[in-house]
Amino acid sequence: MAGTDSTQTGPRTPADAPAIILVAPQLGENIGTAARAMGNTGLSDLRLVNPRDGWPSDKARAAASGADWVIDGARVYDSTDAAVADLTHVFATTARSRFMMKPVLTPKTAATEIRQEAARGGKCGILFGPERTGLDNEDLVRANGLVTIPLNPGFTSLNLAMAVLLIGYEWWSAGDATPDREISGGHMPATREEFRNFMDRLTERLDETGFLREGDLAPTTVRNLTNLFQRAELSAHEINTLHGMIKYLQRTALPPEKRKKG
Amino acid sequence: MAGTDSTQTGPRTPADAPAIILVAPQLGENIGTAARAMGNTGLSDLRLVNPRDGWPSDKARAAASGADWVIDGARVYDSTDAAVADLTHVFATTARSRFMMKPVLTPKTAATEIRQEAARGGKCGILFGPERTGLDNEDLVRANGLVTIPLNPGFTSLNLAMAVLLIGYEWWSAGDATPDREISGGHMPATREEFRNFMDRLTERLDETGFLREGDLAPTTVRNLTNLFQRAELSAHEINTLHGMIKYLQRTALPPEKRKKG
Repeated sequence: MAGTDSTQTGPRTPADAPAIILVAPQLGENIGTAARAMGNTGLSDLRLVNPRDGWPSDKARAAASGADWVIDGARVYDSTDAAVADLTHVFATTARSRFMMKPVLTPKTAATEIRQEAARGGKCGILFGPERTGLDNEDLVRANGLVTIPLNPGFTSLNLAMAVLLIGYEWWSAGDATPDREISGGHMPATREEFRNFMDRLTERLDETGFLREGDLAPTTVRNLTNLFQRAELSAHEINTLHGMIKYLQRTALPPEKRKKG
Repeated sequence: MAGTDSTQTGPRTPADAPAIILVAPQLGENIGTAARAMGNTGLSDLRLVNPRDGWPSDKARAAASGADWVIDGARVYDSTDAAVADLTHVFATTARSRFMMKPVLTPKTAATEIRQEAARGGKCGILFGPERTGLDNEDLVRANGLVTIPLNPGFTSLNLAMAVLLIGYEWWSAGDATPDREISGGHMPATREEFRNFMDRLTERLDETGFLREGDLAPTTVRNLTNLFQRAELSAHEINTLHGMIKYLQRTALPPEKRKKG
């Protein structure tokens, strides 16, 4: 809408996001922190299979730190089968993958497959097991594929919310258009002419002062300085600041009481 | 070493991993959960600038859930400058990037640059601000670049350990050789001959039973079945199971008391 600042819009809840299914979660707090991680990463379809401490849960709501729409939309099921009945493709998160023949995917690859499945009209879900034991074999068998998060071998234990966050993060990132690298600040970059005028003025001034008096080295020095300022990708505003700096650097020092450190 | 099971080796602590610098962290618990996230992702160089509740911290150790080597190796500094003095490249994590002209990177791009910097002998660090306020402008100015985690706009608030986990995860993933997708279970895939023998037997048996009696459709049906079993990427062991299944499917049903459901 016109006049709407993007900082004022609420969190996004994309309709093609996968469902998060927590099987027999033990603590309300963990459901809450998982819901917060879902909110952070654009997920909102939370399904709980036999939560041990019941539902709704005040502790879950408090731990969700404002992801109320996820908590409010959560649905409770009495079996994993019921929780996944409407889904077309189910992944199971597990660190153990030695005991059954299944595709094992990284979270990144799973994220791509989830988006492809959504693009052709399917709906995916991701199963997470109880905090202490993880998913049992029955639940792993139900899944089309397993997702294992690559972590430091010998120290792979993650809490539930951390696991939800990493899976959600990969899903969100797969659809995110954030540039890999950009310059912040919103200033317009200087034109090439502004940049050349600045370098000309700097060179002239350095020549006047004798800094470039070693004739043979002068071209190299100027080239090095040009590359240095080039790398900084200066804005027009910054070039003005540098012009001012050059102007002031040739003055004699003020007495201390007249100085001001910005 | 010969006979060493990879599951028995301890967590890895790669020497080229970046330092994690927590500036004025408030709660020991948060330092501990951040240390755990570091352990999960192969990071071990933890630096604390003026931790509010002092150091060492029993609460931090408890919250680290076994990442004792990270806690034991932590060093305390009285300024950010002192904490980053030996580093060649420093990134600052921040959600705010509108007020200064700086390169802003995704965690993935930062991870690549950190590994490139390490490959040429440099050492990187990543600054994280206090829980409530984040890094102040002075600390942002110190950094060579900013890292902003792409998250759901309108719900970007992450706790400290979550932020450390995502940055560490991208760093770990950038050096991780886990296949994007593989079949777990360790069974050898069937040879093409084993697969063909199975399909021949199945086709023969289906032909005997009359399933393929619609002459014109038979080739299509066989092709569909072949594709179906092909997609399953069967192991030799599974093909043996299927041979047994075909054999038994032609028998007459046992009386209920003689059945056994595996």
